[in-house]
Amino acid sequence: MSAKQAGIPVIAVDAMGGDHGPGVVVSGAVEALRRDAGFRVALYGDADAVGAEVQALDANDLPLDVVACTQDIAMGEAPATAIRSRPDSPIVRAMRDHRAGDVDAVVSAGSTGAMVAASLILLGRLEGADRPAIATVIPTLDRPFVLLDVGANVQCTPEHLLDFARMGAVYGREVLSVDAPRVGLLNIGEEPGKGTELVVAAHGLLRESELDFAGNVESRGLLQGTADVVVTDGFTGNMVLKLIEGFGLFMARVAGGSDSGASGGGLRGLLERMDYTAYGGALLLGVKGSPVICHGASNARAITNAVSIAARLAARDLPALVAAGLAAGG
Amino acid sequence: MSAKQAGIPVIAVDAMGGDHGPGVVVSGAVEALRRDAGFRVALYGDADAVGAEVQALDANDLPLDVVACTQDIAMGEAPATAIRSRPDSPIVRAMRDHRAGDVDAVVSAGSTGAMVAASLILLGRLEGADRPAIATVIPTLDRPFVLLDVGANVQCTPEHLLDFARMGAVYGREVLSVDAPRVGLLNIGEEPGKGTELVVAAHGLLRESELDFAGNVESRGLLQGTADVVVTDGFTGNMVLKLIEGFGLFMARVAGGSDSGASGGGLRGLLERMDYTAYGGALLLGVKGSPVICHGASNARAITNAVSIAARLAARDLPALVAAGLAAGG
Repeated sequence: MSAKQAGIPVIAVDAMGGDHGPGVVVSGAVEALRRDAGFRVALYGDADAVGAEVQALDANDLPLDVVACTQDIAMGEAPATAIRSRPDSPIVRAMRDHRAGDVDAVVSAGSTGAMVAASLILLGRLEGADRPAIATVIPTLDRPFVLLDVGANVQCTPEHLLDFARMGAVYGREVLSVDAPRVGLLNIGEEPGKGTELVVAAHGLLRESELDFAGNVESRGLLQGTADVVVTDGFTGNMVLKLIEGFGLFMARVAGGSDSGASGGGLRGLLERMDYTAYGGALLLGVKGSPVICHGASNARAITNAVSIAARLAARDLPALVAAGLAAGG
Repeated sequence: MSAKQAGIPVIAVDAMGGDHGPGVVVSGAVEALRRDAGFRVALYGDADAVGAEVQALDANDLPLDVVACTQDIAMGEAPATAIRSRPDSPIVRAMRDHRAGDVDAVVSAGSTGAMVAASLILLGRLEGADRPAIATVIPTLDRPFVLLDVGANVQCTPEHLLDFARMGAVYGREVLSVDAPRVGLLNIGEEPGKGTELVVAAHGLLRESELDFAGNVESRGLLQGTADVVVTDGFTGNMVLKLIEGFGLFMARVAGGSDSGASGGGLRGLLERMDYTAYGGALLLGVKGSPVICHGASNARAITNAVSIAARLAARDLPALVAAGLAAGG
């Protein structure tokens, strides 16, 4: 790709992924190009469907390519099987191009499992990253924080949590622009001896590490922004993430069904501030690349922000920074 | 106690427990007596302090006794040590009287650890209850549900989760007045194979049990009331409970700092509906008695409701019902 050769980052976007189809994804990606300069977008998907959306958006003049794919991965498919049996799907094609260096990040609102499997199989793990982890940015009233792992590893060792902390600290620095991120350990009490054997041991490792360790963070204080990076196993992290999402749905339902326009408006204002779409996607850290995993329910705004963040990270070679962060601990 | 001999339930209340001191606890207990009839309250605590509060509330005519205690357990004390070294504290005195049959439930907003330890040491486990669990009622927009374990057992086996489900089903029936409670397993996906080894195995046990098993429940849907009883290990349950509390604090902060009276009012209305004080306290299930554990931050309304629920449960011999529920499975 010529754009790539000229040093301009190219962001691959799975145009077929997500609950809302190519219309939402393409319009989100187009909006990112209209908002920010300095990168190209490659839309992977059905050539006719994607081309029609680009046409409808009058986006032919933008730095945008369509990469025709004849297959797709459905949400329910077993990830590893899907990767093998759908070589011409957007996720597999984009990930192969990412490995070849033709694109600098892959954004998809499709199957999280397929994105993780494709990343592990086609990109491979970074040296020192025993377990790649999914990191996401959670907005709070005060300041956002990075939460990881939110689902890649349901069963973890204390050493995995230490790796997550190191990778999360790098990501926090890059995505939140915090120079020295404070890293907290998600737990059910502030005292070092609280919690499962896993978190008690992880607490010890984190305290002795080179990181700026904030100690245990209780879920009660999570939305008050007590740390820049919060580390947990993928089971607990996924549980917490989905509960926070449920909280958003709950408030949206109250706001929508409110019998008072004014109070509905107040809740909607709160929802705006807590809107996960502001950060668009979660990053799989610890692989040789930048896979950005968007929520299946992503709207165009979420895709726009995910593409923008991917472009920003691509310009800085996040995998190299993560590898350096993992190596810093010895 | 003569009241007890007449068959009227007596609810022991730790008047010294909680962040707000005896004033809040005594006024909450007095309000319960003014609202409902058919039970007595025994206030355990410093005779002078408690007596003064009773006097100030003009409550001398109510079915109320003061049980003078010369010691107290502080929040930070190691529970098992505190139970041994403070024999004249409200929790230890009340629990001894509960074991002797002089009181029918013990309500405290003091140290959760001390309440659990005192219950295990002084009341003992019910037959068939390998691990007692703390069950709490969570309000949602549609209908409340029972969540357990919310903190008594950070590390569990699949068999423990099955016991929790059986005990929770009994509690759900009694406290929510649901005839055949549907029991869900808290997990990070709806499919049976999702989650940790613990939840995968627990799923199998629950599916084969005599319970009305609703399958896996995701945290995203928790606040939409998808099951009557939701079972999890004490680490995850405590994490989820505290995150829900954090939502409440978050909303309260937004409502309090709102620049619009109308939207603040809307949020306050939402807070009212989500108010945990409506259910007052959590119950330790699986011991030979009814220990009701209130939040340290309980206000008078929470104490009132905890005392009312304790009185209702005492009239029905909850421990016997729980034992029967545990035995039903085999």
